[in-house]
Amino acid sequence: MEQGGVMALGWAARDASGILSPYNFPRRAPGDGDVAIKVLFCGICHTDLHLIKNEWGNAMFPVVPGHEVVGVVTAVGPGVTKFAPGETVGVGYFVDSCRACDSCAAGHENYCPEVVLASNGVGHDGAATRGGFSDAVVVDEGYVVRVPDALPLDAAAPLLCAGVSVYSPMTRYGLNAPGKRLGVVGLGGLGHMAVKFGKAFGMEVTVISSSPGKRDEALGRLGADAFLVSRDPDQMKAAAGTLDGIIDTVSAGHPVVPLLELLKPMGQMVVVGAPSEPMELPAFAIIQGGKRVVGSVVGSVADCQAMLDFAAEHGIAADVEVVGMDYVNTAMERLARNDVRYRFVVDVAGSLGAAA
Amino acid sequence: MEQGGVMALGWAARDASGILSPYNFPRRAPGDGDVAIKVLFCGICHTDLHLIKNEWGNAMFPVVPGHEVVGVVTAVGPGVTKFAPGETVGVGYFVDSCRACDSCAAGHENYCPEVVLASNGVGHDGAATRGGFSDAVVVDEGYVVRVPDALPLDAAAPLLCAGVSVYSPMTRYGLNAPGKRLGVVGLGGLGHMAVKFGKAFGMEVTVISSSPGKRDEALGRLGADAFLVSRDPDQMKAAAGTLDGIIDTVSAGHPVVPLLELLKPMGQMVVVGAPSEPMELPAFAIIQGGKRVVGSVVGSVADCQAMLDFAAEHGIAADVEVVGMDYVNTAMERLARNDVRYRFVVDVAGSLGAAA
Repeated sequence: MEQGGVMALGWAARDASGILSPYNFPRRAPGDGDVAIKVLFCGICHTDLHLIKNEWGNAMFPVVPGHEVVGVVTAVGPGVTKFAPGETVGVGYFVDSCRACDSCAAGHENYCPEVVLASNGVGHDGAATRGGFSDAVVVDEGYVVRVPDALPLDAAAPLLCAGVSVYSPMTRYGLNAPGKRLGVVGLGGLGHMAVKFGKAFGMEVTVISSSPGKRDEALGRLGADAFLVSRDPDQMKAAAGTLDGIIDTVSAGHPVVPLLELLKPMGQMVVVGAPSEPMELPAFAIIQGGKRVVGSVVGSVADCQAMLDFAAEHGIAADVEVVGMDYVNTAMERLARNDVRYRFVVDVAGSLGAAA
Repeated sequence: MEQGGVMALGWAARDASGILSPYNFPRRAPGDGDVAIKVLFCGICHTDLHLIKNEWGNAMFPVVPGHEVVGVVTAVGPGVTKFAPGETVGVGYFVDSCRACDSCAAGHENYCPEVVLASNGVGHDGAATRGGFSDAVVVDEGYVVRVPDALPLDAAAPLLCAGVSVYSPMTRYGLNAPGKRLGVVGLGGLGHMAVKFGKAFGMEVTVISSSPGKRDEALGRLGADAFLVSRDPDQMKAAAGTLDGIIDTVSAGHPVVPLLELLKPMGQMVVVGAPSEPMELPAFAIIQGGKRVVGSVVGSVADCQAMLDFAAEHGIAADVEVVGMDYVNTAMERLARNDVRYRFVVDVAGSLGAAA
């Protein structure tokens, strides 16, 4: 262990079974610009599930997942200027980047080719990063955000990934204009956040889902204005050409042409889900009408801070089911069958010691 | 024939053989806002070929093709304010639109759902429109553009479709920024115009083609800065992440992932060619790097005028092979095998009478 480092306790998957169990590992001591953070809550993202089961073939076991961290600052390096011990902070999908490329210079660290992911990434020291399913994390202050007091700590955790993943492209591509009509495809972790942000932006929100059973939830509790069953051609046809923009959060393969047909001329569809099968995209579906298909992954650090501030101002947080660390393997099973409304959050500080 | 109308002489395809021959048909008399135009030159676009062979199944025979018209005003209706007899004007891909929808109101008539195409369109009178392979056209002044004196009349004709089809998205989506790096996929009618505009905008232009034989032409006469053979994985890999934007003009099916890999983070690819097979677009190819795939068809009337003015200012016109009307069937055969550099233009006024 590096001088001054500490042993951390986390839960890790040891192999592609994805089963998580207690794991002790070293964390670096806070360096010059580092913030040491006691993890309070950590959301569970579908990416965590892909990762621990090595579905993308890049897992560096043991893997400590978790990149939706809300915690409290316990110590700071001497060069830290933005944070002080006792403050409530968040850490998201990435914890560092090259700081030199065009993307970093433009404040789009999320598109830095050398971005360091919070979990299963490769840090500047060459070691695999360990995520928020652990008692503490140490992160450079440039990649830490402030969690406003108004936000509930547990329900804020998913904002760090699910929230910013929709907020960032919505604000970047004009899917935040009052009075405009937004389509949200898929009502899961990301989709339910997109509905909440869309309504807060003053948009007219249509939820598009393959599950008719989600209608009441969408129109009722989430406050969407309309609901379309994507598999009903009559409903889809009746809504053709009515939406200014769409945010597609679905991570299973699905046809995109019926979605593009919902767009007005020059409308755009932002893709934030990542199905493993390629989309079938006929050129005519975007050429006629001058439409755009845009990819987006999470958001910059500045996007993330702006999103948290906006969420606090508008009383927005994720709908969560808070669980103890000893429940995470069950939670992962349930997540695999989409049995959660809408995000699991692990009460790390409240359960890690007991669970270990 | 409507009162005051005149008989026009054109060349039409009578069936899906696509063979063109002389055809007499009525043109309306210039109405209140109409401009009557003697056709001087008319370019031949690949769309004309699709149309006369009924490859899209929508041909209303007899079909008089042609939507890249340069001509001279011979008469104007009483309400016309923008044009006077004797002026040199152009008519492009469409000759009317609904003038009421959001697209029309925003000046994007090319995306009006009721846009009236110059050829094989359905006019407000319910009749099929006849294009520029004819001695005269009558068009509402709102859909006519001025051809600057500095432009050669024959080589200006393809600007009305091929030119604006690349100029419009290039200016709309920032692929006109000096010093930025532009990729042009395909070196045909649209591609060679994109190279010329790109250079005039001060961009660094890379031509990407499946034909290694086009290297000298691209780098030499057209002045491109670099050339990539799209089928050479080593060349493509070496250029990965180097382009700010791409304009893809290829109308045959081709893989798009290798093209998207050429883009820098947050780069965009504009699709103006329309292969009949769908693109295979994996989500990861646009999500990683936050990339955009944008469809575009021709441009607005204002785009078209701006393009002509820019072309005149910068000495840009199409590279054309001027032919007589009696050559059009041969020209269509040659076009079908891409045997033209880079656009056929029919000398309508100089050959129509003789050919008939």
